[in-house]
Amino acid sequence: MEALQHTLKESFGIVFDDLSLLETAFTHTSYANEHRLLKISHNERLEFLGDAVLQLLISQYLYLKYPTKTEGDMSKLRSMIVREESLAGFSKDCGFDQYIKLGKGEEKSGGRTRETILGDLFEAFLGALLLDKDVDAVQTFLDQVMIPKVETGSYEQVKDYKTQLQELLQTKGEVTIVYTVVNEEGPAHAKQFEVEVTADGQSLSKGQGRSKKMAEQAAAKKALEQLT
Amino acid sequence: MEALQHTLKESFGIVFDDLSLLETAFTHTSYANEHRLLKISHNERLEFLGDAVLQLLISQYLYLKYPTKTEGDMSKLRSMIVREESLAGFSKDCGFDQYIKLGKGEEKSGGRTRETILGDLFEAFLGALLLDKDVDAVQTFLDQVMIPKVETGSYEQVKDYKTQLQELLQTKGEVTIVYTVVNEEGPAHAKQFEVEVTADGQSLSKGQGRSKKMAEQAAAKKALEQLT
Repeated sequence: MEALQHTLKESFGIVFDDLSLLETAFTHTSYANEHRLLKISHNERLEFLGDAVLQLLISQYLYLKYPTKTEGDMSKLRSMIVREESLAGFSKDCGFDQYIKLGKGEEKSGGRTRETILGDLFEAFLGALLLDKDVDAVQTFLDQVMIPKVETGSYEQVKDYKTQLQELLQTKGEVTIVYTVVNEEGPAHAKQFEVEVTADGQSLSKGQGRSKKMAEQAAAKKALEQLT
Repeated sequence: MEALQHTLKESFGIVFDDLSLLETAFTHTSYANEHRLLKISHNERLEFLGDAVLQLLISQYLYLKYPTKTEGDMSKLRSMIVREESLAGFSKDCGFDQYIKLGKGEEKSGGRTRETILGDLFEAFLGALLLDKDVDAVQTFLDQVMIPKVETGSYEQVKDYKTQLQELLQTKGEVTIVYTVVNEEGPAHAKQFEVEVTADGQSLSKGQGRSKKMAEQAAAKKALEQLT
């Protein structure tokens, strides 16, 4: 905790008044469950709050930055910016992954690098910061950490691969694209899916991922690489 | 607009600096579409922003009020509090329905009392208030308008009727409950659905509503009334 406090102060000028909030934000359910008798709080409730403050600040940012985008376009862009994979990256950029407390099983199975855990951690931290300070403090932190990346426009370029593949294939006329799970393995907390994508029944590629959705995206990405 | 400004000042102590924001919040797309050449802004972008600030403030309220609720329970409660029907009610409570600018067609077909329009209007107003003032001003307004109703606990008691019906019927053992649309009428913008609910093939009741979901709830509600 002291190393974390030091990092927050040095890198972001953040000093928590209520250290128990910070402690809770960096405690994963798996750790709290292993120490049930101590009644330690975990970060799921803070994540709920952090998700909401993040949604608001990104919405406001998009509203002001893009005066002509429709609410539908803003909504799409927002969901790309705040998606788990993206938030997990910010958690790592901030070095948060070093400080999260995990249960032993979770630690062994690679929880420290798992995107869900790191994405949730980022949101929980924002929730703790909101409660300890205010919305402006969260804004200042996001201005340091997230907004510079958003400003590069990298999120706008990221179109999801399934859409890209569909658009590419349809230029040659009607085509039926089907994604099928062809393999599924590993224990519940570390499932791995394999998905095959076909166009008019012809196999294009296969992709792997932690969820069906991610495996589909991976398969579409590979198909795009092969086709272009 | 002057009557609206008067109402806002007298009832809530709110004076807008940027009147164009207020104007936009109270302009429905149907009105903007009818006056396309004037390039009038409508309230959909503000609604996007207002929805986000509402979610945050209700999340924070729930977090602080219920220290032991899980994020799942908070999330359910939040969605009941911020649902369209509820927001439309607040719009009416504030007298906002008198001031929204609608297109002629929308006005004729009863748009001024439509829940989607009034719910969106409430959110758009919150978005305008956020931009004209800050999060605290929105909080103060919600403390006057929404929170007293939330405090009555009425949202917690509202369990959805389909769940209640299922719980009631299952006390007597396994039962198969089916909802079927038996009638659907009216033009696209004013559809009316009729749904019949059956338990193990035996008809219990019928309900009407503007959407399938609402008709299902109405049918379940009626069945509950008959059974209890």
